[in-house]
Amino acid sequence: MLWQRRQPSDAHRKQDLGMRVRKAIITAAGVDRTQLPLQTVVDRVGRVRTALDLLIDEVVAAGIEEIAVVIRPGLKPDFKQAATDHAATLEFIEQDHPRGYGDAVLRTRAFVGNAPFLHLVHDHLYVSRSRVACAKQLIDIAERENCAVSAIQATRENQLAYFGAIGGIPIPRQSRLYEIRTVIEKPTPTEAEQKLMVAGQRAGHYLCLFGMHVLTSEIFDLLQHDLERLPAGASLNLSGALAQFASSHRYLAAELEGVRYDIGEKYGLLIAQLAIALSGDDRDRILTEMLELVAKSSPHA
Amino acid sequence: MLWQRRQPSDAHRKQDLGMRVRKAIITAAGVDRTQLPLQTVVDRVGRVRTALDLLIDEVVAAGIEEIAVVIRPGLKPDFKQAATDHAATLEFIEQDHPRGYGDAVLRTRAFVGNAPFLHLVHDHLYVSRSRVACAKQLIDIAERENCAVSAIQATRENQLAYFGAIGGIPIPRQSRLYEIRTVIEKPTPTEAEQKLMVAGQRAGHYLCLFGMHVLTSEIFDLLQHDLERLPAGASLNLSGALAQFASSHRYLAAELEGVRYDIGEKYGLLIAQLAIALSGDDRDRILTEMLELVAKSSPHA
Repeated sequence: MLWQRRQPSDAHRKQDLGMRVRKAIITAAGVDRTQLPLQTVVDRVGRVRTALDLLIDEVVAAGIEEIAVVIRPGLKPDFKQAATDHAATLEFIEQDHPRGYGDAVLRTRAFVGNAPFLHLVHDHLYVSRSRVACAKQLIDIAERENCAVSAIQATRENQLAYFGAIGGIPIPRQSRLYEIRTVIEKPTPTEAEQKLMVAGQRAGHYLCLFGMHVLTSEIFDLLQHDLERLPAGASLNLSGALAQFASSHRYLAAELEGVRYDIGEKYGLLIAQLAIALSGDDRDRILTEMLELVAKSSPHA
Repeated sequence: MLWQRRQPSDAHRKQDLGMRVRKAIITAAGVDRTQLPLQTVVDRVGRVRTALDLLIDEVVAAGIEEIAVVIRPGLKPDFKQAATDHAATLEFIEQDHPRGYGDAVLRTRAFVGNAPFLHLVHDHLYVSRSRVACAKQLIDIAERENCAVSAIQATRENQLAYFGAIGGIPIPRQSRLYEIRTVIEKPTPTEAEQKLMVAGQRAGHYLCLFGMHVLTSEIFDLLQHDLERLPAGASLNLSGALAQFASSHRYLAAELEGVRYDIGEKYGLLIAQLAIALSGDDRDRILTEMLELVAKSSPHA
């Protein structure tokens, strides 16, 4: 993490500014994807876990003390089982009458209070490329910069339909850190080209949300405002509120040392599992199995 | 399927002998593995499905008209959801007071009646290497031979702890078909060497059960007999009854044109998903993704 080495006075600054992130929310109420956290994954050291359990690990490793999970009504027993040892420490918030992802975030308002909070989506898995978990990297940046930070990942144009994307400007002398100017949910390529070009990106790549944010409680007012004006039957996303937040607050985007895998995409779980296994203790075994399968399989059986 | 080409009078013989397999049972009540059929898999043509849905496809493609699934009490809603379009056609049998896998099979007695039946375990996925699904291959053999047939797969000695294995003799002039003499559940390597060596196998390989059988209703009397003598707290397996069945009936084992993947094993779902994807329409895409992941990943992040 280059930006850390360039900030030798980290500890000192953190103390001065005082932001400490100790609460996290995981939204897991999306209609189609509600089962994803219950799926089974083998972790880096070869233990069979649920995706939810891995997510909670990520959060706990970042120093979080209180975690709330927003779920669909009736799924609490399934989620408690999937959370294994962590189950007792979780607060479950049921999203009845769901009105979208932004609405799910808004349901955590009472839990969060006025504290800054870490937010993860339930349908991603995160594989760090350093020894520090992705959530921990993000919180370190937020606490150092004393402001909201969203993690981002440079993403090919043909994937824009799946993500929110940001427009912004690189912060001088801060590798992989940007000041966010706008956020657009699932932009078209034309929209992206007009509004989301960021200096220094590879051609055809945009900075898409990583599914991991440190936000401050001002976001709830923006979401509440949007919700009250939401047409009947419409769904509230988070990107709208993030865009408004960016227009009135210092709000950064950070490329982390890691990759997010959307396990709700087709082959998402397969790719995530391969990525985890190939970066873990069972790398050699998995490489061998992969080669055997390729050798044995044929294009059209 | 070589043995079919050597039997040009198939249709005629089937008519004469009269065995028709039209019922199937899927046992899905194993304590640790009960969630496996609810896991998500992408099928050969790229559709996102549940493992249960794929299993039912396998059964339906084999011409089965009636299917019962043995589940743990309370899981019927989850299984109905996972069965998607097939849900209405399934009969669910709840295994209260579970006493093992053999007990689960026995619970289907009233459903099966006196008919021969196909039996699949819930924690495997099957990838055919021919245009004919594995279950269909097996039923074709059972109907042609007019007797019970268990599918088998040559399996390395180090995997014996996970499977039942058969001892028997190759049937002359019938490639990949054996007459079963005994069945042992999870044999030790020593036991296997003494009792389960089959002529023509590679060194260190044994014929292990594939998790797919065509059985006749005599198996229920044997299971009932075993169950009544089962010590309190013990678990009834199927292999004991199969061994007894072999001693009094013509009972065959067939190596199919296909592979079974135990999705309950560590990395089982990953390997099964890779095998399906590499034999399907998305082969090139998955090969590309695999190579990219290998290139990007490193042994110790």
